Amino acid sequence: MLVAPLRVVHRFTDLNPDEIADLFQTTQRVSRAIEIAYKSIALTIAIQDGVGAGQTVEHVHVHIIPRHKDDFVPNDKIYHELDQHDKEAQRRARTSQEMADEATWFRQFLAMDTAN
Amino acid sequence: MLVAPLRVVHRFTDLNPDEIADLFQTTQRVSRAIEIAYKSIALTIAIQDGVGAGQTVEHVHVHIIPRHKDDFVPNDKIYHELDQHDKEAQRRARTSQEMADEATWFRQFLAMDTAN
Repeated sequence: MLVAPLRVVHRFTDLNPDEIADLFQTTQRVSRAIEIAYKSIALTIAIQDGVGAGQTVEHVHVHIIPRHKDDFVPNDKIYHELDQHDKEAQRRARTSQEMADEATWFRQFLAMDTAN
Repeated sequence: MLVAPLRVVHRFTDLNPDEIADLFQTTQRVSRAIEIAYKSIALTIAIQDGVGAGQTVEHVHVHIIPRHKDDFVPNDKIYHELDQHDKEAQRRARTSQEMADEATWFRQFLAMDTAN
């Protein structure tokens, strides 16, 4: 899942202090819901900050990836897969409807979170 | 470079809202200094949140890695190298003195940052 600030800025260092607080408090809230929704045991949280770090969209965003036992061997192969993900010509992109359905399904887990 | 909160907690979701704001505002400040000190073009910013995501120390911390042109090909091979880094028996660990010297050298770049 991606979490992005409302204001479109390219780099992490372009954010102001309030945006930093809001972005990562939101990332934490979404993280809690992801762990429940996808029954994960851990999370990979990453920012590709700049083109030289693999950033492909010029709007700073945080990746949150639910992890499961032995999902990638070696463990950090996940980042290579992440890098390749959008480049696979054969990969069938999910439809807008499928993504909207998953978003609707996911919202119940955000709503269950009473910590915020 | 690693940025960690003062309070020792295992997971990202264990942090309270003030700690979240402080951790990532500090991460941003350190990021600006890293870009100047190491003349990087981009940053990889990552949290291995939980053992299943590669976390080896039970104290949540943010990795900030300065990136340079074509430093890792493919780009996200950096994460595999990160995963292997501590496991290489042949690797000579830097001495405490070498690390202290680099920390002293680096502090000048933090001091130069007038944005905070």
